[in-house]
Amino acid sequence: MSAVEARLAALGHTVPAAPKPAATYVPTVQVGDIIHVAGQVPLRDGEFRWVGKVGRDFDLDQARAAATEVALNFLAQLKVALDGDLDRVVRIVKLGGFVNCTEDFTQQPQVINAASELMVAAFGEAGRHARSAVGVACLPFGVAVEIDGIVQVR
Amino acid sequence: MSAVEARLAALGHTVPAAPKPAATYVPTVQVGDIIHVAGQVPLRDGEFRWVGKVGRDFDLDQARAAATEVALNFLAQLKVALDGDLDRVVRIVKLGGFVNCTEDFTQQPQVINAASELMVAAFGEAGRHARSAVGVACLPFGVAVEIDGIVQVR
Amino acid sequence: MSAVEARLAALGHTVPAAPKPAATYVPTVQVGDIIHVAGQVPLRDGEFRWVGKVGRDFDLDQARAAATEVALNFLAQLKVALDGDLDRVVRIVKLGGFVNCTEDFTQQPQVINAASELMVAAFGEAGRHARSAVGVACLPFGVAVEIDGIVQVR
Repeated sequence: MSAVEARLAALGHTVPAAPKPAATYVPTVQVGDIIHVAGQVPLRDGEFRWVGKVGRDFDLDQARAAATEVALNFLAQLKVALDGDLDRVVRIVKLGGFVNCTEDFTQQPQVINAASELMVAAFGEAGRHARSAVGVACLPFGVAVEIDGIVQVR
Repeated sequence: MSAVEARLAALGHTVPAAPKPAATYVPTVQVGDIIHVAGQVPLRDGEFRWVGKVGRDFDLDQARAAATEVALNFLAQLKVALDGDLDRVVRIVKLGGFVNCTEDFTQQPQVINAASELMVAAFGEAGRHARSAVGVACLPFGVAVEIDGIVQVR
Repeated sequence: MSAVEARLAALGHTVPAAPKPAATYVPTVQVGDIIHVAGQVPLRDGEFRWVGKVGRDFDLDQARAAATEVALNFLAQLKVALDGDLDRVVRIVKLGGFVNCTEDFTQQPQVINAASELMVAAFGEAGRHARSAVGVACLPFGVAVEIDGIVQVR
Protein backbone atom coordinates (compact mmCIF):
# COMPACT_ATOMS: atom_id res chain seq x y z
CA MET A 1 0.00 0.00 0.00
CA SER A 2 1.28 3.46 -0.85
CA ALA A 3 2.11 5.83 2.01
CA VAL A 4 -0.66 8.06 0.66
CA GLU A 5 -3.25 5.30 1.01
CA ALA A 6 -1.95 4.39 4.46
CA ARG A 7 -2.48 7.98 5.59
CA LEU A 8 -6.01 7.95 4.15
CA ALA A 9 -6.74 4.59 5.77
CA ALA A 10 -5.75 6.01 9.15
CA LEU A 11 -8.53 8.56 8.64
CA GLY A 12 -11.02 5.88 7.65
CA HIS A 13 -10.87 6.50 3.89
CA THR A 14 -10.37 3.82 1.24
CA VAL A 15 -9.49 4.62 -2.36
CA PRO A 16 -12.23 2.76 -4.26
CA ALA A 17 -12.05 0.90 -7.54
CA ALA A 18 -11.92 3.49 -10.31
CA PRO A 19 -15.36 4.11 -11.81
CA LYS A 20 -15.66 3.69 -15.57
CA PRO A 21 -16.26 6.98 -17.40
CA ALA A 22 -19.96 7.61 -17.78
CA ALA A 23 -19.54 8.53 -21.42
CA THR A 24 -17.20 8.76 -24.42
CA TYR A 25 -13.96 9.89 -22.84
CA VAL A 26 -11.03 8.62 -20.79
CA PRO A 27 -10.58 9.28 -17.07
CA THR A 28 -7.03 10.65 -17.34
CA VAL A 29 -4.60 11.92 -19.97
CA GLN A 30 -0.92 12.44 -19.19
CA VAL A 31 1.28 14.92 -21.08
CA GLY A 32 4.84 15.05 -19.80
CA ASP A 33 4.63 15.07 -16.01
CA ILE A 34 1.09 16.47 -15.94
CA ILE A 35 -2.03 14.34 -15.61
CA HIS A 36 -5.41 15.84 -16.47
CA VAL A 37 -8.17 14.10 -14.52
CA ALA A 38 -11.65 14.12 -16.08
CA GLY A 39 -14.61 15.42 -14.09
CA GLN A 40 -15.39 12.92 -11.37
CA VAL A 41 -18.83 12.40 -9.86
CA PRO A 42 -20.10 10.36 -6.89
CA LEU A 43 -20.36 7.10 -8.80
CA ARG A 44 -19.76 4.03 -6.65
CA ASP A 45 -20.21 0.38 -7.68
CA GLY A 46 -22.01 1.50 -10.82
CA GLU A 47 -24.54 3.59 -8.92
CA PHE A 48 -24.81 7.38 -8.89
CA ARG A 49 -25.00 8.66 -5.34
CA TRP A 50 -25.85 12.10 -3.96
CA VAL A 51 -28.37 12.77 -6.73
CA GLY A 52 -29.97 16.11 -5.91
CA LYS A 53 -29.42 19.80 -5.51
CA VAL A 54 -27.44 21.35 -2.66
CA GLY A 55 -29.53 23.91 -0.79
CA ARG A 56 -32.74 22.02 -1.57
CA ASP A 57 -32.09 18.28 -1.26
CA PHE A 58 -28.78 18.35 0.60
CA ASP A 59 -27.36 20.59 3.31
CA LEU A 60 -23.73 21.64 3.66
CA ASP A 61 -22.66 18.56 5.62
CA GLN A 62 -24.22 16.23 3.08
CA ALA A 63 -22.65 18.16 0.22
CA ARG A 64 -19.28 17.87 1.93
CA ALA A 65 -19.75 14.10 2.20
CA ALA A 66 -20.50 14.03 -1.53
CA ALA A 67 -17.35 16.07 -2.25
CA THR A 68 -15.28 13.64 -0.19
CA GLU A 69 -16.59 10.70 -2.23
CA VAL A 70 -15.84 12.56 -5.44
CA ALA A 71 -12.31 13.29 -4.22
CA LEU A 72 -11.80 9.58 -3.49
CA ASN A 73 -12.91 8.77 -7.05
CA PHE A 74 -10.47 11.40 -8.29
CA LEU A 75 -7.71 9.57 -6.40
CA ALA A 76 -8.95 6.25 -7.75
CA GLN A 77 -8.50 7.47 -11.33
CA LEU A 78 -5.11 8.92 -10.47
CA LYS A 79 -4.07 5.61 -8.91
CA VAL A 80 -4.87 3.73 -12.12
CA ALA A 81 -2.91 6.29 -14.14
CA LEU A 82 0.05 5.83 -11.79
CA ASP A 83 0.07 2.03 -12.00
CA GLY A 84 -1.33 1.79 -8.50
CA ASP A 85 1.21 4.05 -6.80
CA LEU A 86 -0.23 7.33 -5.49
CA ASP A 87 3.17 8.11 -3.93
CA ARG A 88 4.20 9.19 -7.43
CA VAL A 89 2.13 12.36 -7.02
CA VAL A 90 4.41 15.40 -6.92
CA ARG A 91 1.71 18.05 -6.55
CA ILE A 92 -2.03 18.42 -6.76
CA VAL A 93 -1.91 21.50 -9.00
CA LYS A 94 -5.51 22.54 -9.59
CA LEU A 95 -9.01 21.36 -8.75
CA GLY A 96 -12.14 22.60 -10.48
CA GLY A 97 -15.21 22.16 -8.29
CA PHE A 98 -18.77 22.32 -9.61
CA VAL A 99 -21.66 22.27 -7.14
CA ASN A 100 -25.21 21.56 -8.36
CA CYS A 101 -27.07 24.02 -6.17
CA THR A 102 -29.94 26.43 -5.78
CA GLU A 103 -29.47 30.02 -6.90
CA ASP A 104 -29.20 31.27 -3.33
CA PHE A 105 -26.63 28.73 -2.13
CA THR A 106 -23.29 30.49 -1.73
CA GLN A 107 -21.16 28.02 0.23
CA GLN A 108 -19.50 26.33 -2.77
CA PRO A 109 -16.07 26.88 -1.17
CA GLN A 110 -17.12 25.14 2.04
CA VAL A 111 -18.43 22.18 0.00
CA ILE A 112 -15.29 21.81 -2.10
CA ASN A 113 -13.15 22.27 1.02
CA ALA A 114 -14.00 18.66 1.88
CA ALA A 115 -12.17 17.55 -1.28
CA SER A 116 -9.31 19.95 -0.66
CA GLU A 117 -8.92 18.72 2.90
CA LEU A 118 -8.75 15.13 1.66
CA MET A 119 -5.94 16.07 -0.73
CA VAL A 120 -3.96 17.69 2.07
CA ALA A 121 -4.61 14.68 4.33
CA ALA A 122 -3.34 12.39 1.59
CA PHE A 123 -0.37 14.35 0.26
CA GLY A 124 0.52 16.93 2.91
CA GLU A 125 1.98 20.12 1.45
CA ALA A 126 2.00 18.48 -2.00
CA GLY A 127 -1.78 18.30 -1.73
CA ARG A 128 -2.21 22.08 -1.48
CA HIS A 129 -3.66 23.24 -4.79
CA ALA A 130 -5.11 26.17 -6.68
CA ARG A 131 -8.85 25.85 -7.08
CA SER A 132 -12.04 27.24 -8.48
CA ALA A 133 -15.49 26.50 -7.07
CA VAL A 134 -18.72 27.50 -8.77
CA GLY A 135 -22.41 26.70 -8.49
CA VAL A 136 -24.04 25.25 -11.59
CA ALA A 137 -27.59 24.74 -12.82
CA CYS A 138 -27.28 21.00 -13.15
CA LEU A 139 -24.70 18.21 -13.29
CA PRO A 140 -24.53 14.86 -15.10
CA PHE A 141 -27.09 12.35 -13.81
CA GLY A 142 -28.25 15.03 -11.38
CA VAL A 143 -25.38 14.51 -8.94
CA ALA A 144 -24.53 17.18 -6.39
CA VAL A 145 -20.79 17.60 -7.01
CA GLU A 146 -18.30 17.22 -9.88
CA ILE A 147 -14.54 17.80 -9.60
CA ASP A 148 -11.84 17.74 -12.28
CA GLY A 149 -8.19 18.62 -11.94
CA ILE A 150 -4.54 18.78 -12.87
CA VAL A 151 -1.81 16.80 -11.09
CA GLN A 152 1.99 16.80 -11.42
CA VAL A 153 3.52 13.33 -11.13
CA ARG A 154 6.85 11.55 -11.29
CA MET B 1 -6.13 18.12 -47.26
CA SER B 2 -4.93 16.67 -43.95
CA ALA B 3 -5.66 13.00 -43.22
CA VAL B 4 -7.76 14.23 -40.31
CA GLU B 5 -9.96 16.33 -42.59
CA ALA B 6 -10.22 13.48 -45.08
CA ARG B 7 -11.53 11.21 -42.32
CA LEU B 8 -14.05 13.85 -41.28
CA ALA B 9 -15.10 14.42 -44.90
CA ALA B 10 -15.82 10.70 -45.25
CA LEU B 11 -18.32 11.14 -42.41
CA GLY B 12 -19.86 14.22 -44.05
CA HIS B 13 -18.14 16.80 -41.85
CA THR B 14 -16.29 19.88 -43.10
CA VAL B 15 -14.01 21.96 -40.90
CA PRO B 16 -15.45 25.44 -41.36
CA ALA B 17 -13.67 28.78 -41.59
CA ALA B 18 -12.58 29.72 -38.08
CA PRO B 19 -15.06 32.08 -36.42
CA LYS B 20 -13.64 35.35 -35.10
CA PRO B 21 -13.68 35.58 -31.29
CA ALA B 22 -16.89 37.19 -30.10
CA ALA B 23 -14.99 39.42 -27.72
CA THR B 24 -11.60 40.65 -26.47
CA TYR B 25 -9.51 37.51 -26.58
CA VAL B 26 -7.66 35.22 -28.97
CA PRO B 27 -8.95 31.82 -30.08
CA THR B 28 -5.80 29.88 -29.20
CA VAL B 29 -2.60 30.33 -27.20
CA GLN B 30 0.32 27.91 -27.55
CA VAL B 31 2.87 27.32 -24.78
CA GLY B 32 5.47 24.72 -25.68
CA ASP B 33 3.63 21.83 -27.31
CA ILE B 34 0.31 22.66 -25.66
CA ILE B 35 -2.43 24.72 -27.32
CA HIS B 36 -5.22 26.17 -25.18
CA VAL B 37 -8.39 26.61 -27.25
CA ALA B 38 -10.81 29.32 -26.11
CA GLY B 39 -14.44 28.46 -25.46
CA GLN B 40 -16.12 27.79 -28.80
CA VAL B 41 -19.80 28.33 -29.51
CA PRO B 42 -22.05 27.46 -32.48
CA LEU B 43 -21.13 30.54 -34.48
CA ARG B 44 -21.26 29.98 -38.25
CA ASP B 45 -20.86 32.63 -40.95
CA GLY B 46 -21.20 35.36 -38.34
CA GLU B 47 -24.50 34.03 -37.03
CA PHE B 48 -25.10 32.42 -33.65
CA ARG B 49 -26.92 29.13 -34.06
CA TRP B 50 -28.63 26.88 -31.51
CA VAL B 51 -29.74 29.81 -29.38
CA GLY B 52 -31.84 28.36 -26.57
CA LYS B 53 -31.87 26.13 -23.54
CA VAL B 54 -31.49 22.35 -23.69
CA GLY B 55 -34.42 20.65 -21.97
CA ARG B 56 -36.77 23.48 -22.90
CA ASP B 57 -35.96 24.65 -26.45
CA PHE B 58 -33.83 21.73 -27.63
CA ASP B 59 -33.97 17.99 -27.01
CA LEU B 60 -30.96 15.68 -26.69
CA ASP B 61 -30.58 15.08 -30.43
CA GLN B 62 -30.65 18.80 -31.18
CA ALA B 63 -28.18 19.48 -28.38
CA ARG B 64 -25.88 16.82 -29.82
CA ALA B 65 -26.06 18.52 -33.22
CA ALA B 66 -25.09 21.79 -31.53
CA ALA B 67 -22.15 20.07 -29.80
CA THR B 68 -20.97 18.67 -33.13
CA GLU B 69 -20.98 22.16 -34.66
CA VAL B 70 -19.07 23.51 -31.68
CA ALA B 71 -16.52 20.71 -32.02
CA LEU B 72 -16.04 21.59 -35.69
CA ASN B 73 -15.40 25.21 -34.70
CA PHE B 74 -12.91 23.95 -32.12
CA LEU B 75 -11.11 22.10 -34.93
CA ALA B 76 -11.31 25.19 -37.13
CA GLN B 77 -9.45 27.25 -34.51
CA LEU B 78 -6.94 24.48 -34.01
CA LYS B 79 -6.38 24.30 -37.78
CA VAL B 80 -5.51 28.00 -37.93
CA ALA B 81 -3.11 27.59 -35.00
CA LEU B 82 -1.45 24.68 -36.82
CA ASP B 83 -0.98 26.55 -40.11
CA GLY B 84 -3.75 24.51 -41.71
CA ASP B 85 -2.43 21.08 -40.76
CA LEU B 86 -4.60 19.18 -38.25
CA ASP B 87 -2.31 16.15 -38.68
CA ARG B 88 0.06 17.95 -36.29
CA VAL B 89 -2.29 17.10 -33.40
CA VAL B 90 -0.58 14.66 -31.02
CA ARG B 91 -3.39 14.33 -28.50
CA ILE B 92 -6.69 15.95 -27.61
CA VAL B 93 -5.89 16.27 -23.89
CA LYS B 94 -8.95 17.80 -22.27
CA LEU B 95 -12.34 19.19 -23.26
CA GLY B 96 -14.51 21.32 -20.99
CA GLY B 97 -18.16 21.13 -21.98
CA PHE B 98 -20.79 23.62 -20.82
CA VAL B 99 -24.45 22.95 -21.59
CA ASN B 100 -27.02 25.76 -21.24
CA CYS B 101 -29.88 23.73 -19.80
CA THR B 102 -32.84 23.59 -17.48
CA GLU B 103 -32.27 22.64 -13.85
CA ASP B 104 -33.70 19.17 -14.36
CA PHE B 105 -31.68 18.27 -17.47
CA THR B 106 -29.04 15.72 -16.49
CA GLN B 107 -27.77 14.38 -19.83
CA GLN B 108 -24.81 16.77 -20.20
CA PRO B 109 -22.49 13.80 -20.84
CA GLN B 110 -24.67 12.53 -23.68
CA VAL B 111 -24.67 16.01 -25.24
CA ILE B 112 -20.91 16.49 -25.03
CA ASN B 113 -20.40 12.91 -26.27
CA ALA B 114 -21.20 14.23 -29.74
CA ALA B 115 -18.08 16.41 -29.57
CA SER B 116 -16.00 13.62 -28.07
CA GLU B 117 -17.11 11.22 -30.79
CA LEU B 118 -16.08 13.75 -33.44
CA MET B 119 -12.61 13.98 -31.90
CA VAL B 120 -12.21 10.20 -31.94
CA ALA B 121 -13.51 10.08 -35.54
CA ALA B 122 -10.95 12.72 -36.51
CA PHE B 123 -7.91 11.59 -34.56
CA GLY B 124 -8.52 7.96 -33.55
CA GLU B 125 -6.86 7.03 -30.25
CA ALA B 126 -5.17 10.46 -30.18
CA GLY B 127 -8.65 11.97 -30.00
CA ARG B 128 -9.51 10.26 -26.70
CA HIS B 129 -9.46 12.92 -24.01
CA ALA B 130 -10.22 13.72 -20.38
CA ARG B 131 -13.36 15.78 -20.03
CA SER B 132 -15.72 17.63 -17.78
CA ALA B 133 -19.35 18.34 -18.63
CA VAL B 134 -21.59 20.61 -16.59
CA GLY B 135 -24.94 22.34 -16.97
CA VAL B 136 -24.92 26.11 -16.69
CA ALA B 137 -27.51 28.83 -16.14
CA CYS B 138 -26.71 30.64 -19.36
CA LEU B 139 -24.09 30.91 -22.09
CA PRO B 140 -22.84 33.74 -24.29
CA PHE B 141 -25.45 35.00 -26.76
CA GLY B 142 -27.82 32.37 -25.32
CA VAL B 143 -26.25 29.47 -27.23
CA ALA B 144 -26.87 25.91 -26.09
CA VAL B 145 -23.29 24.58 -25.91
CA GLU B 146 -19.77 25.93 -25.29
CA ILE B 147 -16.58 23.84 -25.36
CA ASP B 148 -12.98 24.79 -24.56
CA GLY B 149 -9.94 22.56 -24.38
CA ILE B 150 -6.29 21.65 -24.27
CA VAL B 151 -4.45 19.97 -27.16
CA GLN B 152 -0.91 18.60 -27.49
CA VAL B 153 0.67 19.27 -30.88
CA ARG B 154 3.89 18.75 -32.81
CA MET C 1 7.43 49.51 -9.45
CA SER C 2 7.18 47.07 -12.33
CA ALA C 3 6.55 48.46 -15.82
CA VAL C 4 3.27 46.52 -15.75
CA GLU C 5 2.10 48.31 -12.61
CA ALA C 6 3.23 51.67 -14.00
CA ARG C 7 1.05 51.09 -17.09
CA LEU C 8 -1.90 50.17 -14.88
CA ALA C 9 -1.32 53.19 -12.65
CA ALA C 10 -1.46 55.46 -15.70
CA LEU C 11 -4.97 54.11 -16.26
CA GLY C 12 -5.92 54.67 -12.62
CA HIS C 13 -5.59 51.05 -11.51
CA THR C 14 -3.66 49.85 -8.46
CA VAL C 15 -2.78 46.21 -7.86
CA PRO C 16 -4.20 45.62 -4.37
CA ALA C 17 -2.81 43.54 -1.53
CA ALA C 18 -3.47 39.88 -2.39
CA PRO C 19 -6.63 38.60 -0.71
CA LYS C 20 -6.25 35.49 1.43
CA PRO C 21 -7.98 32.42 -0.06
CA ALA C 22 -11.52 32.15 1.23
CA ALA C 23 -11.08 28.44 1.93
CA THR C 24 -8.71 25.46 2.04
CA TYR C 25 -6.49 26.06 -0.96
CA VAL C 26 -3.58 28.18 -2.15
CA PRO C 27 -3.92 31.14 -4.52
CA THR C 28 -1.30 29.95 -7.02
CA VAL C 29 0.63 26.82 -7.91
CA GLN C 30 3.61 26.93 -10.27
CA VAL C 31 4.74 23.92 -12.34
CA GLY C 32 7.72 24.67 -14.55
CA ASP C 33 7.05 28.05 -16.18
CA ILE C 34 3.27 27.81 -15.75
CA ILE C 35 1.36 29.36 -12.85
CA HIS C 36 -2.21 28.23 -12.17
CA VAL C 37 -4.17 31.01 -10.48
CA ALA C 38 -7.09 29.94 -8.27
CA GLY C 39 -10.54 31.40 -8.88
CA GLN C 40 -10.51 35.02 -7.79
CA VAL C 41 -13.55 36.92 -6.53
CA PRO C 42 -14.17 40.60 -5.71
CA LEU C 43 -12.77 40.38 -2.20
CA ARG C 44 -11.17 43.63 -1.02
CA ASP C 45 -9.89 44.39 2.49
CA GLY C 46 -11.58 41.27 3.81
CA GLU C 47 -14.99 42.26 2.42
CA PHE C 48 -16.84 40.60 -0.42
CA ARG C 49 -18.01 43.19 -2.91
CA TRP C 50 -20.45 42.94 -5.83
CA VAL C 51 -22.64 40.44 -4.05
CA GLY C 52 -25.62 39.80 -6.31
CA LYS C 53 -26.75 38.45 -9.63
CA VAL C 54 -25.99 40.09 -12.97
CA GLY C 55 -29.19 40.80 -14.89
CA ARG C 56 -31.16 41.25 -11.66
CA ASP C 57 -29.00 43.16 -9.14
CA PHE C 58 -26.29 44.46 -11.48
CA ASP C 59 -26.33 45.73 -15.06
CA LEU C 60 -23.58 45.22 -17.62
CA ASP C 61 -21.54 48.26 -16.55
CA GLN C 62 -21.61 47.19 -12.91
CA ALA C 63 -20.70 43.63 -13.83
CA ARG C 64 -17.78 44.96 -15.85
CA ALA C 65 -16.61 46.94 -12.82
CA ALA C 66 -16.78 43.73 -10.77
CA ALA C 67 -14.76 41.88 -13.44
CA THR C 68 -12.11 44.62 -13.35
CA GLU C 69 -11.76 44.24 -9.58
CA VAL C 70 -11.50 40.48 -9.94
CA ALA C 71 -8.79 40.91 -12.58
CA LEU C 72 -6.85 43.17 -10.23
CA ASN C 73 -7.04 40.49 -7.53
CA PHE C 74 -5.83 37.97 -10.11
CA LEU C 75 -2.82 40.23 -10.73
CA ALA C 76 -2.33 40.64 -6.98
CA GLN C 77 -1.99 36.88 -6.55
CA LEU C 78 0.30 36.66 -9.54
CA LYS C 79 2.46 39.44 -8.12
CA VAL C 80 2.95 37.52 -4.87
CA ALA C 81 3.85 34.37 -6.82
CA LEU C 82 6.41 36.40 -8.81
CA ASP C 83 8.09 37.93 -5.74
CA GLY C 84 6.51 41.28 -6.51
CA ASP C 85 7.58 41.54 -10.14
CA LEU C 86 4.74 41.34 -12.66
CA ASP C 87 7.25 42.06 -15.44
CA ARG C 88 8.15 38.36 -15.20
CA VAL C 89 4.87 37.49 -16.95
CA VAL C 90 5.58 35.99 -20.37
CA ARG C 91 2.00 35.37 -21.42
CA ILE C 92 -1.49 35.37 -19.98
CA VAL C 93 -2.44 31.98 -21.45
CA LYS C 94 -6.02 31.33 -20.42
CA LEU C 95 -8.76 32.94 -18.35
CA GLY C 96 -11.89 31.13 -17.17
CA GLY C 97 -14.71 33.58 -16.46
CA PHE C 98 -17.80 32.67 -14.44
CA VAL C 99 -20.67 35.15 -14.24
CA ASN C 100 -23.39 34.73 -11.59
CA CYS C 101 -26.39 35.74 -13.67
CA THR C 102 -30.05 35.27 -14.46
CA GLU C 103 -31.02 32.61 -16.97
CA ASP C 104 -31.76 35.19 -19.66
CA PHE C 105 -28.50 37.15 -19.33
CA THR C 106 -26.33 36.41 -22.35
CA GLN C 107 -23.59 39.07 -22.20
CA GLN C 108 -21.03 37.00 -20.28
CA PRO C 109 -18.39 37.84 -22.93
CA GLN C 110 -18.97 41.56 -22.53
CA VAL C 111 -18.62 41.23 -18.75
CA ILE C 112 -15.40 39.23 -18.88
CA ASN C 113 -14.05 41.59 -21.57
CA ALA C 114 -13.37 44.05 -18.76
CA ALA C 115 -10.87 41.59 -17.29
CA SER C 116 -9.41 40.78 -20.69
CA GLU C 117 -8.97 44.47 -21.47
CA LEU C 118 -7.13 44.97 -18.18
CA MET C 119 -4.73 42.16 -19.09
CA VAL C 120 -4.00 43.73 -22.47
CA ALA C 121 -3.57 47.16 -20.83
CA ALA C 122 -1.10 45.63 -18.37
CA PHE C 123 0.88 43.30 -20.62
CA GLY C 124 0.23 44.41 -24.22
CA GLU C 125 0.36 41.52 -26.70
CA ALA C 126 1.50 39.20 -23.89
CA GLY C 127 -1.83 39.88 -22.22
CA ARG C 128 -3.88 38.44 -25.09
CA HIS C 129 -5.27 35.10 -23.92
CA ALA C 130 -7.60 32.25 -24.73
CA ARG C 131 -10.76 32.39 -22.69
CA SER C 132 -14.03 30.81 -21.73
CA ALA C 133 -16.97 32.73 -20.28
CA VAL C 134 -20.08 31.08 -18.89
CA GLY C 135 -23.07 32.02 -16.77
CA VAL C 136 -23.53 30.09 -13.55
CA ALA C 137 -26.33 29.55 -11.05
CA CYS C 138 -24.40 30.92 -8.12
CA LEU C 139 -20.89 31.80 -6.99
CA PRO C 140 -19.07 31.70 -3.66
CA PHE C 141 -20.43 34.20 -1.14
CA GLY C 142 -22.93 35.27 -3.79
CA VAL C 143 -20.43 37.40 -5.71
CA ALA C 144 -21.14 38.38 -9.32
CA VAL C 145 -17.90 37.30 -11.02
CA GLU C 146 -15.15 34.69 -10.54
CA ILE C 147 -12.07 34.32 -12.76
CA ASP C 148 -9.30 31.70 -12.70
CA GLY C 149 -6.44 31.26 -15.14
CA ILE C 150 -3.13 30.02 -16.46
CA VAL C 151 -0.06 32.25 -16.89
CA GLN C 152 3.37 31.60 -18.41
CA VAL C 153 6.20 33.27 -16.49
CA ARG C 154 9.97 33.62 -16.47
